[in-house]
Amino acid sequence: MMFRSNCYRNLISCIGNKKISKKYSVISAVLEKPNVGDVTEIKGWVKNLRKQKDLIFADISDGSCAQKLQIVIPKNLTTDALTYGSSVSITGKLSKSPRGQLELVADNIKVLGSCVVLDGYPFNPRTTHPPEYTRQYLHLRPRTNYTSAILRIRSAVTKHIHDYFASNNYTNVHTPILTSNDCEGAGEVFKIQPDSEETIKAMMQENKDRDSVYFGSKTFLTVSGQLHLEAVCRGMGNVYTFGPTFRAENSRSRLHLSEFYMLEAELAFCENINHLQGAIEDLLKYVFTETRNTNEADLFLIDKHNKAPSWVNKEFVTLTYDEARQILLQKGCTLTDEGINKEQELTLVEHCNGVPVFVVRWPKDMKSFYMKECSEDNTQVDALDLLTPITGEVVGGSLREDSYEKLKAKLPSDRLNWYLDLRKFGNIPTGGYGLGLERLLQVLCNVSNIKDTLPFPRWPHNCDM
Amino acid sequence: MMFRSNCYRNLISCIGNKKISKKYSVISAVLEKPNVGDVTEIKGWVKNLRKQKDLIFADISDGSCAQKLQIVIPKNLTTDALTYGSSVSITGKLSKSPRGQLELVADNIKVLGSCVVLDGYPFNPRTTHPPEYTRQYLHLRPRTNYTSAILRIRSAVTKHIHDYFASNNYTNVHTPILTSNDCEGAGEVFKIQPDSEETIKAMMQENKDRDSVYFGSKTFLTVSGQLHLEAVCRGMGNVYTFGPTFRAENSRSRLHLSEFYMLEAELAFCENINHLQGAIEDLLKYVFTETRNTNEADLFLIDKHNKAPSWVNKEFVTLTYDEARQILLQKGCTLTDEGINKEQELTLVEHCNGVPVFVVRWPKDMKSFYMKECSEDNTQVDALDLLTPITGEVVGGSLREDSYEKLKAKLPSDRLNWYLDLRKFGNIPTGGYGLGLERLLQVLCNVSNIKDTLPFPRWPHNCDM
Repeated sequence: MMFRSNCYRNLISCIGNKKISKKYSVISAVLEKPNVGDVTEIKGWVKNLRKQKDLIFADISDGSCAQKLQIVIPKNLTTDALTYGSSVSITGKLSKSPRGQLELVADNIKVLGSCVVLDGYPFNPRTTHPPEYTRQYLHLRPRTNYTSAILRIRSAVTKHIHDYFASNNYTNVHTPILTSNDCEGAGEVFKIQPDSEETIKAMMQENKDRDSVYFGSKTFLTVSGQLHLEAVCRGMGNVYTFGPTFRAENSRSRLHLSEFYMLEAELAFCENINHLQGAIEDLLKYVFTETRNTNEADLFLIDKHNKAPSWVNKEFVTLTYDEARQILLQKGCTLTDEGINKEQELTLVEHCNGVPVFVVRWPKDMKSFYMKECSEDNTQVDALDLLTPITGEVVGGSLREDSYEKLKAKLPSDRLNWYLDLRKFGNIPTGGYGLGLERLLQVLCNVSNIKDTLPFPRWPHNCDM
Repeated sequence: MMFRSNCYRNLISCIGNKKISKKYSVISAVLEKPNVGDVTEIKGWVKNLRKQKDLIFADISDGSCAQKLQIVIPKNLTTDALTYGSSVSITGKLSKSPRGQLELVADNIKVLGSCVVLDGYPFNPRTTHPPEYTRQYLHLRPRTNYTSAILRIRSAVTKHIHDYFASNNYTNVHTPILTSNDCEGAGEVFKIQPDSEETIKAMMQENKDRDSVYFGSKTFLTVSGQLHLEAVCRGMGNVYTFGPTFRAENSRSRLHLSEFYMLEAELAFCENINHLQGAIEDLLKYVFTETRNTNEADLFLIDKHNKAPSWVNKEFVTLTYDEARQILLQKGCTLTDEGINKEQELTLVEHCNGVPVFVVRWPKDMKSFYMKECSEDNTQVDALDLLTPITGEVVGGSLREDSYEKLKAKLPSDRLNWYLDLRKFGNIPTGGYGLGLERLLQVLCNVSNIKDTLPFPRWPHNCDM
């Protein structure tokens, strides 16, 4: 009984001291409901210092919003450690400046962590460092105004996406990163194996090579969760997945990453490509509108000319693949059998005054095996690309082939027999799409290089940290 | 101008036909607001058929909720294709059965996809297949009541977690899956390389091996996003990440997976382990309470004895590591230098009447290099494990060492110099924790095997699909 009571002694001793309430305020909350006269504590980093005769003005950011809080510091309170980049805790009274700006008049300042720029801190006050420069310091980059604004927007967009699908009755499915699927026959995948020689030795079996020893078959990083989503959709209705996806391409463009976030949705009982287009358009307009509501100051910080795109209140354009090619021909573009290149995608969007363009009805040979043949023309499939300014393609999608026989004839590998099985038992018509989060952020924020839309970009020869 | 107008013709032709509204109703919506007398269409799968003289009763599920909708079918409407497992579209009038149950009296039935059990469909009507059996059919498993209920709960828990952090001012950070970090020196990691020999040849440089050719250094799948989170936290305040995490362990227990979802949070300006405990306790109680509100029928389907755990309204217990060992000794457990094993974790929870137990103040040698030394005793660190019924440890966390000198002395690799750098420039005290989603679901749903808490489990020798 001694220990039982000991246990409860601890339990009781916790009540009252465990939930130490945050004594300090975050700046976004202070600005949202400014109670002039209140004494409050804020914590954050010094972004700027302006010294006057008897006073020092400091701009403090705590990462909660784009705005900084101005602190008025009597000279007797300051110390040498109070420098650009240092972290501080400041208590004081909320006041209005002569110009009507909210400020905190400090009566106590504590420097939590000093920052000596000469010791190698890569950023300087009153300087907008170009993205190419800050990208060299991924571990410190979230302290810059630009990157922290993008990361807040990325977080908000992620939340809006989850909210959208929840309120539209989709189940969020965590499709796997590791897969033994042949990934649509794409050569550009990463394969995995245990790093430990000991583990490999312990698990080695006859007829297995190092690539197969752990899982029993060669295992890759996913290039898409679509096929898995389709399996869940055929039992649970509308589903989506939203997470990391990989490409082992040797390309270093402003639009490609080796690891990126993809949103994929699969719509149950979807028989018409128009239905899919409507779902995509609805989602994009929701996300753009909501993000403008929640993160206006961040959008403005990144691009002071940023404004709501004109298309938020317009219907997206639809062109068939053939129509799109006709337009490009008339504009003097050189067409090849490989479809529509990036430059041509942007030409099409410009042609439509910057309104996003669905290109539909693609030649079957150019698209994946799982896409459904058009009922009117079996050389075409019911696929779509959605093109936008800045990035060109941002969404790709299709109806899925639901004929067991047609799918069987096109199946690229026996490893996908399970996928064929889905058509055999209680099959339903479905369609779905994939949207690249980073490209969406490029369009939303007007960011030309995709590497600035995520905290830790990975591309060939670059996997720092 | 011809094409411009062509483009706008398309634009105009879309208005009115693109947004085809869903004509059918999902069952969860029908049950939530039952409008007896309404004519409605539902789509789903036949879960059960009961034939009477002039009528057939069918239970239809569409995956939107645990409940099925009973359909009353006049015999003249039925066809041979209407079997268990087939997918259907049914129109009819919502009515009340003599017993007061909501039902749909069909006037039109269309079988969308037939299902012939004898063709190899692995499930049977009126049968609860054991999890070990359904796990062999991952692609069809979402069609079972049990798995679809767990997947709905998983989706809901994910949503509640995002909602919790959004309403508490945390930024959601997508920490990378691919990392060149030495992963805390853990040997049990997966390494990656491009699958394509062509890519490897094209990218090969002198002094590089196959493991380093793509990124320039050996690259692993993440075992934790914590270190990355700490970098973002030191510029943006409270942050969290929630996504896939990997272990290349050769273990096949009911508690381990090779790929699992981990929630990790890092709290800015966190100076006290009590503060961290409060945050964890608050989150868990929120998620358990909310999920019971949103998914009561799913919880009941999985375990008809499931009820809200008694601890939702109690304070969690706190024991120091030494106190915990004392309790175990008194209970006759054999202690080793390796800490507290799984069985002992469960003994401690039982000792505290099933209330979750924080074990705090761990010997420094047993924990990671980044954990902060206790101010009262530098042989201990301010770390915590949270133990619950069923799984034992479900959360691990700590305050982070914020002394540059102490951290430098303990840093396991030069590759982590960036992490040390974080303490050099405007450092702040932080603390954080990691929570395994699958283990949380085991506790919430009372599921003994972790492989049944996610759609596509991966463990040694198992990476189907």
